[in-house]
Amino acid sequence: MAPITAAFQGERGAFSERAAHRLLGEVSLLPCHSFEEMFERVGGGAADCCVAPIENSLAGSIHRNYDLLLGSDLQVMGETSLRIVHTLIGGPEASLADIRRVYSHPVALAQCARFFRARPEIEAIPAHDTAGAVRIVRERDRRDEAAIASADAAAIYGGRVLVDGIEDNRQNFTRFLLLAPRGRAERIPVVEPARRWKTSLIFRVPNRAGSLYRALGAFAMFEIDLAKIESRPVEGRPWEYAFYLDLIGRQEEPHVARALENLGAMAETVQVLGSYPTRW
Amino acid sequence: MAPITAAFQGERGAFSERAAHRLLGEVSLLPCHSFEEMFERVGGGAADCCVAPIENSLAGSIHRNYDLLLGSDLQVMGETSLRIVHTLIGGPEASLADIRRVYSHPVALAQCARFFRARPEIEAIPAHDTAGAVRIVRERDRRDEAAIASADAAAIYGGRVLVDGIEDNRQNFTRFLLLAPRGRAERIPVVEPARRWKTSLIFRVPNRAGSLYRALGAFAMFEIDLAKIESRPVEGRPWEYAFYLDLIGRQEEPHVARALENLGAMAETVQVLGSYPTRW
Repeated sequence: MAPITAAFQGERGAFSERAAHRLLGEVSLLPCHSFEEMFERVGGGAADCCVAPIENSLAGSIHRNYDLLLGSDLQVMGETSLRIVHTLIGGPEASLADIRRVYSHPVALAQCARFFRARPEIEAIPAHDTAGAVRIVRERDRRDEAAIASADAAAIYGGRVLVDGIEDNRQNFTRFLLLAPRGRAERIPVVEPARRWKTSLIFRVPNRAGSLYRALGAFAMFEIDLAKIESRPVEGRPWEYAFYLDLIGRQEEPHVARALENLGAMAETVQVLGSYPTRW
Repeated sequence: MAPITAAFQGERGAFSERAAHRLLGEVSLLPCHSFEEMFERVGGGAADCCVAPIENSLAGSIHRNYDLLLGSDLQVMGETSLRIVHTLIGGPEASLADIRRVYSHPVALAQCARFFRARPEIEAIPAHDTAGAVRIVRERDRRDEAAIASADAAAIYGGRVLVDGIEDNRQNFTRFLLLAPRGRAERIPVVEPARRWKTSLIFRVPNRAGSLYRALGAFAMFEIDLAKIESRPVEGRPWEYAFYLDLIGRQEEPHVARALENLGAMAETVQVLGSYPTRW
């Protein structure tokens, strides 16, 4: 069987690429410019699956990917969480003392404010993305230029890590979901046997005081653990909310199935995004 | 009385500046490099209040500002929501046909993908922020360069709006909170009489199945409407969660006060961020 192909957003060396290896081991990679393109590539068959960031511990849930997932035929097959470690990457001969210009995505630059404050001789220059900044620095090949990205990007573009872990906040985690078409899910290998499972869903309840409380009763009744709950305003309907919910358990378990049935009987809509193994 | 001063993150012309005017009318503005600096300026007395983005309809909750708010002595005094409209801004003599390079924050560039796809002759160039890109384009003063930012930035830097509303997704809203020190809140004027109030809080409940359900019972019991609920993992404590909750009502109302008391009796911690007028 040919190796499977995973689409991801960003250039080679992006954090999503590391997440893809964590989830799938060896895999062919298909870099995409945007989340939209990534979903299209899987829908059209150019990739077997994709790896999508869904929330970050500093920046919140990536609603855009929830929307694209809802509008697609994909289901969640797995998840992983990566700590976002920023490293300073120069050419093979580079030395920190020579660096005067550092390229990266403005969000990454801002997350390394302490590094720049301590080195006023260094100018921070915005780039489209972190791994792309390493590629550009390697192409320009100047001793006084470096980039901020993941250590993986250094390996891919032949750069050298000059300083590791220059991010201000170590509690910077991104959670990624492995997504595959419902009809082709058996193509996706599972890297390790699951010890526990998670199920993700989105539901909408009538807009009345206490309606969320009653909806959560469906899970409390069977002592099902929740791992995430988040409300999101429904576009164009002021005061209406959709809820993202992750629970511990598998759709096929009788208690979970019954809770989902009960929720379905009281909610306006319930969409199960998938049941998947988790290491958390 | 001297006019009050509001700190905000970004350069003059940032979306936060418009939010400050919406919330406060005429106000002195103190631009800050980072959210950290913004909170420090208010804490140290250089500004009377600040205006902080707290969530975006595409990108989720800005946890960093929740954290800074929790670690500060500030309380929520008001809120407003802005639609993020991106405009193409050139010099006073500029014309769209001449433009070949467009500067902006990579997130704004990505949110205008359709505009760039339709005009392959135009290169998108990353900048630290949107309003700053307008400033740079005006300083460089080239007929073939433009920036993507809010229309306010055009007015501030003497630019001309070449195309209005070039964002792909019109459902792009950012919600801003007005924050002021608890002891100095009476300095902050209220622009219009409040028709309804919101109360924001953060609480933590014991990590057991059903504990969130019971906590929400405190509000359901008195038919208090919820406007937001979101779980967030607690740093360094796997499987523990804090909850952000916004409810409709004012801390001083007897039902709300009683619900908060009941929640306090069952939760590990409850922190009320403030009660404030809302136009939603």
